[in-house]
Amino acid sequence: MSNHQDQPRFSLPVRVYYEDTDLNSVVFYANYIKFMERARTEWLRSLGIELDVLRRREGMLFAVQRMETEFLRPAFFNDLLTVTVALRGSGGASLDFVQEVRREADAACCCRGRTKVICVDEKTLRPKRLPKTLLAEIADGH
Amino acid sequence: MSNHQDQPRFSLPVRVYYEDTDLNSVVFYANYIKFMERARTEWLRSLGIELDVLRRREGMLFAVQRMETEFLRPAFFNDLLTVTVALRGSGGASLDFVQEVRREADAACCCRGRTKVICVDEKTLRPKRLPKTLLAEIADGH
Amino acid sequence: MSNHQDQPRFSLPVRVYYEDTDLNSVVFYANYIKFMERARTEWLRSLGIELDVLRRREGMLFAVQRMETEFLRPAFFNDLLTVTVALRGSGGASLDFVQEVRREADAACCCRGRTKVICVDEKTLRPKRLPKTLLAEIADGH
Amino acid sequence: MSNHQDQPRFSLPVRVYYEDTDLNSVVFYANYIKFMERARTEWLRSLGIELDVLRRREGMLFAVQRMETEFLRPAFFNDLLTVTVALRGSGGASLDFVQEVRREADAACCCRGRTKVICVDEKTLRPKRLPKTLLAEIADGH
Repeated sequence: MSNHQDQPRFSLPVRVYYEDTDLNSVVFYANYIKFMERARTEWLRSLGIELDVLRRREGMLFAVQRMETEFLRPAFFNDLLTVTVALRGSGGASLDFVQEVRREADAACCCRGRTKVICVDEKTLRPKRLPKTLLAEIADGH
Repeated sequence: MSNHQDQPRFSLPVRVYYEDTDLNSVVFYANYIKFMERARTEWLRSLGIELDVLRRREGMLFAVQRMETEFLRPAFFNDLLTVTVALRGSGGASLDFVQEVRREADAACCCRGRTKVICVDEKTLRPKRLPKTLLAEIADGH
Repeated sequence: MSNHQDQPRFSLPVRVYYEDTDLNSVVFYANYIKFMERARTEWLRSLGIELDVLRRREGMLFAVQRMETEFLRPAFFNDLLTVTVALRGSGGASLDFVQEVRREADAACCCRGRTKVICVDEKTLRPKRLPKTLLAEIADGH
Repeated sequence: MSNHQDQPRFSLPVRVYYEDTDLNSVVFYANYIKFMERARTEWLRSLGIELDVLRRREGMLFAVQRMETEFLRPAFFNDLLTVTVALRGSGGASLDFVQEVRREADAACCCRGRTKVICVDEKTLRPKRLPKTLLAEIADGH
């Protein structure tokens, strides 16, 4: 596993809309998972990597294999959130992320998660080595 | 357009979970659209038609082309709803449904919708005639 | 009903993420409803109206009463969409919107919808007159 | 922490609909979180505990505090899944669950998760002791 501890953090602003809330008047916890995925997609885009292009060119997809998620404080309708992405490590076919969802107004950390994403073959859905070009682009992202 | 006014109604029970609600403590209105689609899928299954089999055998998909939806009364967490499906008409490549979402407890009509679904080619996403076998199975459903 | 035909259009960019797609590799149609609601929320914010403030100060909520939606062309993962908001009319307790979802790349109109939103009392969920301040802010939005 | 290892498993059937899938033609991983919550809600109901009644009588809500989730095999459109619920432990204000999502057809385990749920006060959203009646009903569930 390569170590990427020094990788600068990427962050994406996410606004909380009605669709994200539940009857407790807070963000429904499963929706933080979506916010963290949006941020990973934008982090890749910031490195010049588009998932649909990767699929066409390399016949590969990313699949989430494992998540650990802590829900620390409620976020509310209309909150402006900041979702960070930090790559913590990479293996032959996997990327390991640490992410946080913070509220802009008071910097409260609402949710924190660790996500292991694996590269899989588009057809077989079986693990596949990460393309070298992708690893190079990620390394250049430093 | 063939007329299917006499078609008996199909109905599917749907329970309201946390995921379905929003901060107004009611079912988030866009979720009724999902409930109505679940009921159409189960109506087809009740006629012996499985959407994944149709896709493999006939290379066809269904796509929603048009919806008119009225939200009449709020539904709440834990409500048991009944979603009905009535086929109102069919064209060469389309099916026209009228559906209701009622609360079991008081028979209140929470949502009513009309949905036009078209048959499209799996590859091109362009309209395609409904397979005759499908029309026969629907007619037999009477 | 007041007429607001000349109201300038508001627009919100929306990116299509994995969460928005379905197995047909297109945006799941019910998700356009969410995109249109996000845009209405941002349109109100652009006029200085925050829904959570309205609720606290006026004890009012907005509820969607009726929608007519046409799905014209598929949108795909990674598409950048533009969601427009045009207020077409307003009644004592209602606002009537026309909205479009267009793909930036080719200006294709993927979805078009008309939505009637009513002002309801937070407690009773029954219709309530739109606050005059809100109507003034909307009128000033011209 | 009380130990509940011997607690019989509860299970809920869940059908995969279009809304649950993504462009990889599999169940979008965040949706397993919803399936597991539906099963916990039905497990409580099977013990005579309704979340809306708990809220009205005890002024309490459940909130998810922590999840560990593994995505082991893809599930597909139309799959009939079985979602199990096993209570592994309980603390003064928390319940600890282990859950699995299996495909009926081949018993493949698609997703496995551990979820810590805490009891919170409806108003303050701060932790609150589990009502004794609830613990008794859970113990009787053996």
